Amino acid sequence: MGIRILRASAHDIRFPTSLTLDGSDAMNRAPDYSAAYVILETDHPDQLAGHGLTFTIGRGTELCVEAIKLLADHVVGRTLEDIAADMAGFWRSLVADSQLRWLGPEKGVVHLATAALVNAVWDLYAKVEGKPLWKLLADMSPEKLVACIDFRYIDDVLGPAEATEILERKLTGRRQREEEMLRDGFPAYTTSAGWLGYSDEKIRKLAGEAMAQGFTHLKLKVGADPASDLRRARILRQAIGPKRHLMLDANQVWGVDEAISSVRALAEVNPWWIEEPTSPDDVLGHHRIRESIRPIGVATGEHVQNRVIFKQLFQAEAIDFCQIDSCRLGGVNEILAVLLMASKFEVPVCPHAGGVGLCEYVQHLAIFDYIGVSGSLENRTCEYVDHLHEHFVEPVHLRNGRYLAPLAAGYSAEIKPASRVRFAYPAGAAWAEHRMPEGTEVGT
Amino acid sequence: MGIRILRASAHDIRFPTSLTLDGSDAMNRAPDYSAAYVILETDHPDQLAGHGLTFTIGRGTELCVEAIKLLADHVVGRTLEDIAADMAGFWRSLVADSQLRWLGPEKGVVHLATAALVNAVWDLYAKVEGKPLWKLLADMSPEKLVACIDFRYIDDVLGPAEATEILERKLTGRRQREEEMLRDGFPAYTTSAGWLGYSDEKIRKLAGEAMAQGFTHLKLKVGADPASDLRRARILRQAIGPKRHLMLDANQVWGVDEAISSVRALAEVNPWWIEEPTSPDDVLGHHRIRESIRPIGVATGEHVQNRVIFKQLFQAEAIDFCQIDSCRLGGVNEILAVLLMASKFEVPVCPHAGGVGLCEYVQHLAIFDYIGVSGSLENRTCEYVDHLHEHFVEPVHLRNGRYLAPLAAGYSAEIKPASRVRFAYPAGAAWAEHRMPEGTEVGT
Repeated sequence: MGIRILRASAHDIRFPTSLTLDGSDAMNRAPDYSAAYVILETDHPDQLAGHGLTFTIGRGTELCVEAIKLLADHVVGRTLEDIAADMAGFWRSLVADSQLRWLGPEKGVVHLATAALVNAVWDLYAKVEGKPLWKLLADMSPEKLVACIDFRYIDDVLGPAEATEILERKLTGRRQREEEMLRDGFPAYTTSAGWLGYSDEKIRKLAGEAMAQGFTHLKLKVGADPASDLRRARILRQAIGPKRHLMLDANQVWGVDEAISSVRALAEVNPWWIEEPTSPDDVLGHHRIRESIRPIGVATGEHVQNRVIFKQLFQAEAIDFCQIDSCRLGGVNEILAVLLMASKFEVPVCPHAGGVGLCEYVQHLAIFDYIGVSGSLENRTCEYVDHLHEHFVEPVHLRNGRYLAPLAAGYSAEIKPASRVRFAYPAGAAWAEHRMPEGTEVGT
Repeated sequence: MGIRILRASAHDIRFPTSLTLDGSDAMNRAPDYSAAYVILETDHPDQLAGHGLTFTIGRGTELCVEAIKLLADHVVGRTLEDIAADMAGFWRSLVADSQLRWLGPEKGVVHLATAALVNAVWDLYAKVEGKPLWKLLADMSPEKLVACIDFRYIDDVLGPAEATEILERKLTGRRQREEEMLRDGFPAYTTSAGWLGYSDEKIRKLAGEAMAQGFTHLKLKVGADPASDLRRARILRQAIGPKRHLMLDANQVWGVDEAISSVRALAEVNPWWIEEPTSPDDVLGHHRIRESIRPIGVATGEHVQNRVIFKQLFQAEAIDFCQIDSCRLGGVNEILAVLLMASKFEVPVCPHAGGVGLCEYVQHLAIFDYIGVSGSLENRTCEYVDHLHEHFVEPVHLRNGRYLAPLAAGYSAEIKPASRVRFAYPAGAAWAEHRMPEGTEVGT
């Protein structure tokens, strides 16, 4: 624990996913899944390093990389012991750097960069402790977990004392839930069948494969033209039968009124939730949508910028499902704040994943939420997308549509060295292959 | 109008204001007022160029500069005629660049960069038309103004038809209000006397000078320790007498409960408003604070990230004063959306200024709001800070505590070439002077 962080290096890693329309949705038609990636080198005798990332979708990744370099001043030179002794203070030191705070505060590029660094510190912490992150958290006392949280701006709904009580109430049964996770894993749903760029035939085929793999919850991207949305939704419902759960995801393309009418037009396929029906900033809009489309649930979170917006989504009773994002929120510390608020307001947490490394991250968060905070699997399922796992040292393992609890020490989002080299942007070989030969005219 | 934008160059310009604690407040103790600055070069026969900036406070300005370069792809190569023919579409093209949108959406670094570019386009547009920006706007028809606005995410409270009606109702009297602005100017208040880093004696002295200059509204930074806040507030109230308006600004340092108790403890100095009592993201928190501290008003806006948050602040009746920021919102187009919503909800607009170029910008917005949208000066005053105006080609002119309507063509935030060179970061002479001699050891 007395090890010192000697250096931070930040890397721009991009995968040319736009070539296959994997990941396409109504808002993001051609993403290149990317990571702003940080490595914290230490003086640990085994050369343990903390690896962390924030997820991006192509252009602009370099902004997060540069922001990581600026924020790294608050990390480099410190010891893990010192950081772990005051986790909330450490987190505050990142978000309260006043000159950089002006560029947020606690949102956008600087907050994405904060997430990468915080995630890297937790990866290091878990590796040093020799535990997977979920286990590191599950073994912490309520007091120690609460000491990780910066309660600024949320203490009007949740303070340290109540947070401690929530965790203490779930001390009973931690051991059994941990055994259950190791044995059965955490329920997952798949988005892999329903990307907007996929043909009807591909949706049918992939839905069949997903059911064969044990998935009972499948998600479809909507928000294209209404006729196409309905046709595709009917295809998926027909493919999966009446018992399985079908979720819809509009990726923010609608206004509030349009969301209400669009979801009603899709009600015949009996959706379990509509995800991101409108702007992630619109707490009151989500509330109105939710009131207007019952019993269809409202889900959001992958673009919810920080705990302050989540606080209001809970206060306003605006969502049925809380979709925390491991890289949009400021890393594990802020995630803990949201898990505890979700528990208080009895909103199930169904983490957002996919992208690069998000599945690797959120499995830890979902499993810890079950063991230590919520104690329930009711209405809980964690997103799974079947892309890019081959680039990770410790990729996720699914069995029967469930995330098996990871066993390796750390936070699981370490990208293989060869992949980091090959997909480095712009110099990596993967990008050189897609580049025009010198002198090629691209036209105006 | 048929002129083409040939090139965009982006510049990092920083002023070492932290040396004097000008601009110091409870959240931002040592800002270096800065600008991410863009110049749009054209093929105009008189070599007219559009200049635009977004305001930052030091480290991280380079992130906005890089974001401007990425977003400039949507501007360079287009003609002003083409842009002006579909202003809302142009604006949407900047905020809907899907890979960059992931880093927001419409918030933080990418939105600050959007503001710089949009402001530069409007500067160019006004220069080509030979009018100051406020006059360009005041001469537009309601239909043309409404065609500048992207109604996505706000059309549940304000659509094009109602926006047009609001503007049509104020067509009568436009001419008289324009003459009034040219003759008397727009009411201003000063923040220059009340920075947190200033001594009691300096506050007293500067308050006297401000009153001598005709100011009737003065603002004090609070949010330090309660005893010090009260002592300084009493000094200012004593200095300005019972009739003048005293405003308080906490710059987001409090939680919701703390804000309520802190403001109550300062009620004896009869504050007109408390500004930024808590997180700018906390719509419901502002509502609760407002309900708890009447008749003291609640003001916020300089950190309100976009029209979606403003929409909710209005819907929730959470603020008494709307403090638009010319560079935090995505430039003139989004400002127009907020001015119209503020009019609908009858919330007076009192723009945020100070920093670098913000006074130069917001004078146009306040004057246009009066002439074309609100038609009222009641409870309206525009921030003024007496710093850094000497670096502008067309600095603001105040008389008797009012902004005189600017007459030069453009949007007034063009920094003098010599200042751009001297304060270029890190290579400019102003920064070379503050740099350590080579080989100096700074310690660990």
